[in-house]
Amino acid sequence: MINLGLDDFLISALKEDIGTGDITTESCVPASAVSHGFFKAKAEGVVCGVDVLRRVFALIDPAVKVTVLVEDGGRVKKGDIIAEIEGASRSILTGERVSLNLLQHMSGIATATAEASASVVGTKARIADTRKTTPGLRVLEKYAVKTGGGSNHRFNLSDGVLIKDNHIVAAGGIRNAVEAVRNNIPHTLKIEVETETMEQVKEALDAVADIIMLDNMTVPQMKEAVDFIAGRAKTEASGNMGERDLRQVAETGVDIISIGALTHTVRALDISLKFAE
Amino acid sequence: MINLGLDDFLISALKEDIGTGDITTESCVPASAVSHGFFKAKAEGVVCGVDVLRRVFALIDPAVKVTVLVEDGGRVKKGDIIAEIEGASRSILTGERVSLNLLQHMSGIATATAEASASVVGTKARIADTRKTTPGLRVLEKYAVKTGGGSNHRFNLSDGVLIKDNHIVAAGGIRNAVEAVRNNIPHTLKIEVETETMEQVKEALDAVADIIMLDNMTVPQMKEAVDFIAGRAKTEASGNMGERDLRQVAETGVDIISIGALTHTVRALDISLKFAE
Amino acid sequence: MINLGLDDFLISALKEDIGTGDITTESCVPASAVSHGFFKAKAEGVVCGVDVLRRVFALIDPAVKVTVLVEDGGRVKKGDIIAEIEGASRSILTGERVSLNLLQHMSGIATATAEASASVVGTKARIADTRKTTPGLRVLEKYAVKTGGGSNHRFNLSDGVLIKDNHIVAAGGIRNAVEAVRNNIPHTLKIEVETETMEQVKEALDAVADIIMLDNMTVPQMKEAVDFIAGRAKTEASGNMGERDLRQVAETGVDIISIGALTHTVRALDISLKFAE
Amino acid sequence: MINLGLDDFLISALKEDIGTGDITTESCVPASAVSHGFFKAKAEGVVCGVDVLRRVFALIDPAVKVTVLVEDGGRVKKGDIIAEIEGASRSILTGERVSLNLLQHMSGIATATAEASASVVGTKARIADTRKTTPGLRVLEKYAVKTGGGSNHRFNLSDGVLIKDNHIVAAGGIRNAVEAVRNNIPHTLKIEVETETMEQVKEALDAVADIIMLDNMTVPQMKEAVDFIAGRAKTEASGNMGERDLRQVAETGVDIISIGALTHTVRALDISLKFAE
Amino acid sequence: MINLGLDDFLISALKEDIGTGDITTESCVPASAVSHGFFKAKAEGVVCGVDVLRRVFALIDPAVKVTVLVEDGGRVKKGDIIAEIEGASRSILTGERVSLNLLQHMSGIATATAEASASVVGTKARIADTRKTTPGLRVLEKYAVKTGGGSNHRFNLSDGVLIKDNHIVAAGGIRNAVEAVRNNIPHTLKIEVETETMEQVKEALDAVADIIMLDNMTVPQMKEAVDFIAGRAKTEASGNMGERDLRQVAETGVDIISIGALTHTVRALDISLKFAE
Amino acid sequence: MINLGLDDFLISALKEDIGTGDITTESCVPASAVSHGFFKAKAEGVVCGVDVLRRVFALIDPAVKVTVLVEDGGRVKKGDIIAEIEGASRSILTGERVSLNLLQHMSGIATATAEASASVVGTKARIADTRKTTPGLRVLEKYAVKTGGGSNHRFNLSDGVLIKDNHIVAAGGIRNAVEAVRNNIPHTLKIEVETETMEQVKEALDAVADIIMLDNMTVPQMKEAVDFIAGRAKTEASGNMGERDLRQVAETGVDIISIGALTHTVRALDISLKFAE
Repeated sequence: MINLGLDDFLISALKEDIGTGDITTESCVPASAVSHGFFKAKAEGVVCGVDVLRRVFALIDPAVKVTVLVEDGGRVKKGDIIAEIEGASRSILTGERVSLNLLQHMSGIATATAEASASVVGTKARIADTRKTTPGLRVLEKYAVKTGGGSNHRFNLSDGVLIKDNHIVAAGGIRNAVEAVRNNIPHTLKIEVETETMEQVKEALDAVADIIMLDNMTVPQMKEAVDFIAGRAKTEASGNMGERDLRQVAETGVDIISIGALTHTVRALDISLKFAE
Repeated sequence: MINLGLDDFLISALKEDIGTGDITTESCVPASAVSHGFFKAKAEGVVCGVDVLRRVFALIDPAVKVTVLVEDGGRVKKGDIIAEIEGASRSILTGERVSLNLLQHMSGIATATAEASASVVGTKARIADTRKTTPGLRVLEKYAVKTGGGSNHRFNLSDGVLIKDNHIVAAGGIRNAVEAVRNNIPHTLKIEVETETMEQVKEALDAVADIIMLDNMTVPQMKEAVDFIAGRAKTEASGNMGERDLRQVAETGVDIISIGALTHTVRALDISLKFAE
Repeated sequence: MINLGLDDFLISALKEDIGTGDITTESCVPASAVSHGFFKAKAEGVVCGVDVLRRVFALIDPAVKVTVLVEDGGRVKKGDIIAEIEGASRSILTGERVSLNLLQHMSGIATATAEASASVVGTKARIADTRKTTPGLRVLEKYAVKTGGGSNHRFNLSDGVLIKDNHIVAAGGIRNAVEAVRNNIPHTLKIEVETETMEQVKEALDAVADIIMLDNMTVPQMKEAVDFIAGRAKTEASGNMGERDLRQVAETGVDIISIGALTHTVRALDISLKFAE
Repeated sequence: MINLGLDDFLISALKEDIGTGDITTESCVPASAVSHGFFKAKAEGVVCGVDVLRRVFALIDPAVKVTVLVEDGGRVKKGDIIAEIEGASRSILTGERVSLNLLQHMSGIATATAEASASVVGTKARIADTRKTTPGLRVLEKYAVKTGGGSNHRFNLSDGVLIKDNHIVAAGGIRNAVEAVRNNIPHTLKIEVETETMEQVKEALDAVADIIMLDNMTVPQMKEAVDFIAGRAKTEASGNMGERDLRQVAETGVDIISIGALTHTVRALDISLKFAE
Repeated sequence: MINLGLDDFLISALKEDIGTGDITTESCVPASAVSHGFFKAKAEGVVCGVDVLRRVFALIDPAVKVTVLVEDGGRVKKGDIIAEIEGASRSILTGERVSLNLLQHMSGIATATAEASASVVGTKARIADTRKTTPGLRVLEKYAVKTGGGSNHRFNLSDGVLIKDNHIVAAGGIRNAVEAVRNNIPHTLKIEVETETMEQVKEALDAVADIIMLDNMTVPQMKEAVDFIAGRAKTEASGNMGERDLRQVAETGVDIISIGALTHTVRALDISLKFAE
Repeated sequence: MINLGLDDFLISALKEDIGTGDITTESCVPASAVSHGFFKAKAEGVVCGVDVLRRVFALIDPAVKVTVLVEDGGRVKKGDIIAEIEGASRSILTGERVSLNLLQHMSGIATATAEASASVVGTKARIADTRKTTPGLRVLEKYAVKTGGGSNHRFNLSDGVLIKDNHIVAAGGIRNAVEAVRNNIPHTLKIEVETETMEQVKEALDAVADIIMLDNMTVPQMKEAVDFIAGRAKTEASGNMGERDLRQVAETGVDIISIGALTHTVRALDISLKFAE
C-alpha cells in the first residue's frame, strides 16, 4: 500500500495523543528498558491495519521491531497473536494507544463487512460502503471495507456521480439532470440516479442512467425494479441496509448493496497489547 | 466554544469529501437555486455538534443561514427538527455529508454517555471517557462526552499521569514509580495508579497516589478496595465497563467509571437533512 | 466556484512572491496613497481566472475593490479592459504579479482550448485535457480548459481508469487487465483501454471496455477503428494531438480528442495592469 | 542541491496526481512485478530536473533505482536516454506522470534559456529571468534558467529593489523614490530603477541608482542610453524581450536582458518513459 | 527525547534562514569541499540543545557527522569543546546559524536556571518556569529549564488550572471559582489559586485548593502564609522573582518559586563554530 | 503592515498556549461576562507589536475591541497605558498570555535598539541587526529593530552575500571568492566580505567588494581600515558589539554597526494586562 498521506495522518494522531510529552513513561521508565509485547485478539474477527502498526512505531522509533503474524484480511479468534513487538519500552508505550485505536477501528469495519458479505454469498450482490465515514479516516475506512471483502462506492463528490432527489427537483426531472451531468463530467465516469418508485426507475432507464439506486424500497419493490431493468443498468440497493435482511435483499438480484452502518456505526474489534513478563 | 482547530479540521473534512469538486451538483443544480431544509432526528437521543453545522456552512458559503432549534445537550425524539437551513442549494448539498457525519457521530456519543450517566444517578460516580478515541477527533469526542453529562479523563499523555502495569514493572514497583513521577512532573498534576489486586491498592495508597484505578475487578473486589481506601484517594473503575452493569459498579462507591466504548464503539444517531418541497 | 483550496494556493503564491516583505513599495509608496488601475488585454483571447483577481486582493487587503468587466469565458481583443481595481497603492502593487501570472496562464489555456474547439465545430468530437498539467495547478488548469469550451479527462489516478501498454503487459493481456480492474474499482467508474493497433482495439472491445483510446494512430487507422467499434465503446484520439490537424482527426468520428499541449505548453495571454495617471 | 522545500512540493504534486489511490495499477499490476524503463528525449534540448526524478521515486519507494545518464545542463538530441529506472512496476507507474511533468517543464525552460544565451554569445549581455513565473514553481523555474546558462533576477519582492513607474509617481519622482528606498532597505541590496526615456535615465543616474532598466525601448534608444550611462550603472534591457532580436539588443552594450517568456510561455521538452519489453 | 514536532520546527527555522538558497556558499564553496569544525563555549554555563545539532545536520545532510562531547546538562567553561562536526563544507555552513541560535538560546536558559537552583540549595523550594515563553519554542524552553535543574509549571491552559484574580472576580469569589472548576475538569488535575493577601490565602484553603500561589508578596508575608497553610496545600511564590533574592524567598518554606524571566529575558550562552585550518 | 504569515504564526502560538482548551476560564468565567482592561507599561521603553494585539484578539473573537493608544515606535514610561481592550472576559483571558509574550519581547528589542541608536547619534553609523534571531520570529524581530530606529541586515542566506573566513579558505582567497560569487548571484545584490586584518581589507578592496566587514577589530584598527577604504566600499563593524562602546566604534567612521545581542539576548519590556474593577 503506497500511501503518501498515511504518515502525515499518523503523526497528527500521535501529536494529538502525546501532547507535549508522555510524562508518565519518561518519568518512570528508564531510557534503556526494553520490552517484548504481543498484539492479541480478544474477540473473533478480521484483522485490518497492520501497516498502521508498522508505520506508527517506525515514526516513533525505527529501532522498534514489529513482526506481523496475521496480515490484513486474515481471520483471528480470541487469543490469537496478530503481531509481536520488541524494542525500547518507552517507544512501545508511547505508540500503544494510537496504534491500537486504529487497528481496533479498522478491524471492526473489516469484521462487519465480512459478516455482511458472508450473508450474501452465492448471490451476485456486492457489499459496498458509502460516504458516511468518519471525517479524516475515509481512505483507511474504505480500505477496511475492501479488506473485509466489500467493494468501494465513490470516494468523494468528484469521482462519482449520484443524482439524488434534491438534484432531480433542482434540475427539473431525471432526464434533465442526467443530460446536464453527462455534458459536464469527464467521460470516464458513469452516472447513477437515486430512485424511490417504479416511475422514477423508468425515467432513469429512459435517460440511460448507468446505475439505478433503489432507495428505501421493500424487497418486493426491489425485485420488481430489478426485473424491469433487466440488466440495462446496474442496480444498487440502499437505505438503512445495516438493519435489513441482506440475504433477502441480495436475492432480488441487485448488483450492489450499500451500507452506511459499515462505517458510521463501528464496533471496535477488541485487541490488546500485552508485555511478556 | 473558542476552538481554533475546528475550522482546520472541517476544511480537511470538506476537502476529503469534495475532492476536486462536487460534479453532480455543479452540473445539474443551477447556481441561482435556493433551498430550505431541515435537520431532523430519526431516533431518540441527545444532540451534539450544532457548532459543526454552523461552521461547515460558514466555511462553504457565509450566505447560508443555519438556525439551530436544539442546542448541544438538548434531547430529541424521532421526528424533532434540530436545525433549519436556507440558502444556495449548491452550498447546502456540498456541505450536507460532512455536517451530518459529524453531527450523527457526536450525537451518538452524547446519547450513549447520557444513558450511562442516567444508570448511575443518585450515586456519587461520574462517567468518564478514555484515550480510546478516533484519531483526529479527540477534542470533539471528549466534548460530546461532556455534552452527554459525562466527565473527561486526561486528554493526552502530557496532561495526566496514569501509571500502568508496564510502568510499574519497568520502575521496579509502585512506590518507585510514583516517586519517580512525582519528581519529574509539573506540580499541577495528580498521580493515578492502575491496580488489579488489593495488594496493589495498598501499595498505591502507601505511595500516596492521588487516584487509584481499579482495573478489571469484580464488584465485590471493587467494594473491598473502595472501603479500604476510605477516601484517602479517588477511585476509578475501569475495564470493559461498556459491557458491565454500571449501577452495580457505581454502588461500590467508586468516584469515577471510565468507559472506552463511549468513543471506540459509537452508534451514530440517525439524523437526516430533508429539503422542503 | 466553491474552491476551498484556492485561498491556500494563493497565499502560498503570495508568500513565494513577497518573501519577507515588498521592500520597494513599503519604502517609497506612502501607506495613504490610493490608485486606480486597469487589467487590460494586450492580445486577443478568452479570459479565465477573474476569481483569482478577486481573491488575491481580498487576501491582501479586503478594502481593495476589484470590478470585473469580462467574466471567465468572455472573449477579449487587444485593448479591452478585463477588470478595474481601486484601493491602497501598496496593496495593489504587492498583489500585481501573482494575480497577473495566474490570470495570464489560465487565460492562455482557455484561449488555446477555444481555438482547438473551434477547429472541430460541427463534428461530434470533444476536446479534452490530460494529466500533463503543471504540478500544483491541476484544478485551475482543468478549470481553464472547461472555460475555453473543452472537456475534462480524469483529474487523477483515482477517479478514472486508463489501462496503458505497461499495465497490459503486466496483467498478461487486455482481457486480464480489464477483468482485474472491473473486480476492484468502484462500480461508478468506466474502464478505458489504450490501443495502438486494430488487434488491440478488437481485444478491448471483446473485454467490454467502456472507452477505447486510439493512441498515435494515423487518420486512416483511426477511421478504421472508429468504424469497427461502431458505437459499442466511446473512442478517444490521443498522441501529440497538439501538433495534428484536429479537423481531420475529428472527422474520423472519434468522441474525444485529448491534447496534452493544452496544459504542458502554455502561451500566456498578454495582460497588463496599468494605473490611471 | 540542498532543497528543503523540494520534497514537500513533490509530495503535494504526487497527492494531486494520485488522489485516493492509483486504482488502475493497483488492480491489474501485481505487487511483485518489476520493470526496467528509460527516460528518453524525443526532441533536442537541455536537460533539467533529474533531481526531481531521484526524489519522486525515493518518496514513493526507496527501493526503486534511478540511474541518471545526463545530468542537469547536459544537451540531448532526439532518442538519447536521460535516465534509467528499475524497480517495482507499481511504484514506477505511480510516479511516472509527476516526474515527467516536471522534467519536461524544467527542461523546456533550460532549453529556451540556452537558445537565448547562444544568441548573445560574444557580447557582454547576460540573459536573465523575471518574476513572471508559475506560482509555486519559482525556485525550480529559476534553477532551470541557471541550468540553461542564464542568470537570475531577484527571487521575490524582498530580495531586490525595482522602482517602477507606479512607485515613481507615488514617491514624487525618481530622486525621492531612490532616496526613500536607500534609507529603508538592508545595505546589502542594490537599487534598480525602471526608465522609459532618456530623461528618466538621467534622473536615475543623478540619483545614483545602481542598475537602470531600459524598458520597452527601441534598439537605438537603448544604445543611446547605454552610451550615456557609460558604466556608471548596470543596464538591463526589458519589455517583451521574448519577441525581440536578442542579438541586436545585446549589441547595444546592455549588461542584462531580462525575458519574462522564459518562464511564462514554456514549451515542454518532449520526454517519455518507455519500459523495456 | 522522542519529539515528533522537533523536525518540523527545525525545518521551518532552516527555511526561514535559508530563504531560496544559500547563495554565498553555493557560489564559492565547491560541492566537494569538506570541513572539520568545533562547537566551542566562549563563556561558562550549562549546555542544552545538542539534539538540535544532531537533527539540524541530519535534516540538511545525513552524511555530516556530529560528535557530541558534552551532553545536555553538562557544565562547560570558556574554551570547552561541546561538539565536533565533520562533512561537506556547504552543509555545515548552511546549518551553522540555526543550530547555533538554538543551542545558545537553550543553553542560556539552562544556565540561568542552574544559577537560580543553586541559590536555593538546601531548602525544599523547586525553581519552576511559567507560560512567559517565546511563542513557538515552549517545549524547547521548558526542556531547557528542566535541563538546568528546574521544574516545569503547566505547559498550557489545558493541562493545569490556575485561578487568577480576574477569574475570581468573574466567578464571584474564590470558593465559587474553585467549585466551578472542580466540577468541570478532568479528575487528574490539581487546582491552583492565586492569592495576594492572607484573606485570600484563607479563602483558598477553605475551598480546598491543592496549590496556593503567593503573588507579589513580601518575604514576611510569604512566611506568614506558608506557616498558616502548614502543608495543607502546596505553596508557590510568584511575581518578578527574576529580580528577588531567591534564597530569602526559599527560606520562607515555599514549595515552588516560579520565575518568568527564565524564559522571557534570556541571555544567550556564547558558543561559536570554528573550522579547523 | 501586510503580513500574510502573521496570522499563521499567531494561530500556532495560540494553539501552543491553549492546548485542548482553557479549562480554568471555561469552568469559572461565564460566557456572558465582559471585561475592560488596560495594557500598561511597567517600565520605560519603546513600544513594538501592537498589531499583534489587534490580530490575536481578532483571531480569537472579532467582537473584542482593542484600542491602541501608543503605536509602534512610541515611547512609554512606567504607568503609561499602551492599549485598552473590551469584550468577552473569556476571550480576553484566553489571548492574554500570547499577546503579552510577543508585545513584551518585541518592545524589549525596540527599546534596546533605540538605546544603541541614541548612543551613536551625530555620527553617520547605522545600528543594524544580524541573523542571530530566535527561530520562527525573524520577521517580527527585525521589524522590532526597525521600529527602534535600527536598520536591517540581510534577512536570510538568499537575500544578501556575506563571504566569511570559511568561504575564503574554501574558495582559495578573497579574490576568487568574490569573483565566483559575482558570476552566480542576481545582479541586484551587493557583495560583502568579512575581514579581520588590514591585509584582508586590502584584498577585499582589490576584489571590488561592495561592503567590507571589520570583524573583531580594536577601535584603532577599525579607524585605520575606514581611512584606508576611504569611501570605496561601505564599512561594517561587527563582533560582540553588544559589549563594546558603540560611540567609540561609530566615531571611527564606519557606516554600519551590527549587533547580534539586539536579538539573541533580549530583555522583555515589562507590560501587564490589568482589568478595570
